Amino acid sequence: MKRIHSKDDILQAGLDIILTKGFNGTGVEAILKQANVPKGSFYNFFSSKEEFGLAIIDKYVADIGERFHSIFKDESLPPLERVKKSFETLIARFESNDCAKGCLIGNLSLEMSDQFEKVRQRLEQSLQGWTRVLSKLLLQAQKEQAIPADLDPAMLAESLISSFQGALLRSKVKKSSEPLKNFTYLFFDRFLTQK
Amino acid sequence: MKRIHSKDDILQAGLDIILTKGFNGTGVEAILKQANVPKGSFYNFFSSKEEFGLAIIDKYVADIGERFHSIFKDESLPPLERVKKSFETLIARFESNDCAKGCLIGNLSLEMSDQFEKVRQRLEQSLQGWTRVLSKLLLQAQKEQAIPADLDPAMLAESLISSFQGALLRSKVKKSSEPLKNFTYLFFDRFLTQK
Repeated sequence: MKRIHSKDDILQAGLDIILTKGFNGTGVEAILKQANVPKGSFYNFFSSKEEFGLAIIDKYVADIGERFHSIFKDESLPPLERVKKSFETLIARFESNDCAKGCLIGNLSLEMSDQFEKVRQRLEQSLQGWTRVLSKLLLQAQKEQAIPADLDPAMLAESLISSFQGALLRSKVKKSSEPLKNFTYLFFDRFLTQK
Repeated sequence: MKRIHSKDDILQAGLDIILTKGFNGTGVEAILKQANVPKGSFYNFFSSKEEFGLAIIDKYVADIGERFHSIFKDESLPPLERVKKSFETLIARFESNDCAKGCLIGNLSLEMSDQFEKVRQRLEQSLQGWTRVLSKLLLQAQKEQAIPADLDPAMLAESLISSFQGALLRSKVKKSSEPLKNFTYLFFDRFLTQK
């Protein structure tokens, strides 16, 4: 039986709403209503809405990390294919959400970076962590001569993530995953692999 | 002498605040205070905050369009150089804002697309307009054999804008324009121009 009023219920309810309405567009009341918990429970777990925002980011990053671990470690695929597959998996998830919501990290990056320094720092850590994982795979891909040898893997990893976030932004406005598919085509089937 | 209480004063004040705090994070009261106008003036000009949002987008697009007209029409530069220069100009502006604020179109794209259908449509029009301008220059660049002949100019224009928005997102979190500079390097000095 589902345990109600748990911290995780509140985080999950908050995540769903914030992905659609943004952080500033989501009131604590709406989260409590969605999670079906009394107001006291919220402030038992989180000292402020900002602390709640940080906890939401941590939960999102942990969930995604767990989900992608098997893709990144799948040695049946070449390293560059694993990187490509991780983006394709994110694109499929976006499509299953009717091209809405997008990525919590990207959404909060634009909305919160200039307003809440602690949130900006947590987003920076998340993006750096993502970059490190891709960077290792891209270094392997370089050793296998699958991508150009003179591009810094860390710079390339960060640029891939940034371009993905930009394509997601465009797709969210267009309500079509076409820009995301063009992103994978351009980077993985053209720019990085052309001889 | 500056005319006070004008529609343009309210739009300019709103634009400044919304670029930093987002649309949902900005109350009408704060805009009125910044513009130094009474509440009645706002609702004389705008029937709702959503209508105000649409007017802000229109003002932003008109201002940017005017500013970039001379770059796009500058026949002393090859077409691809004009495209590159337009992005470099946006990057310089971002740096002059201490790597804050960013692009109104990008910010509202992530914050508003799932919430206000009219705003989403206006953002879509803006992004399509930007794509058309770059697309024409990229077609010229193709005719001059400056970029690959088999990439659709419209797809490429949209992808450039998307990747720029993603690099801007990353730079806003990093508080450094490095990701934006990597964007111009990768696209203009590597991917599009390598033989």
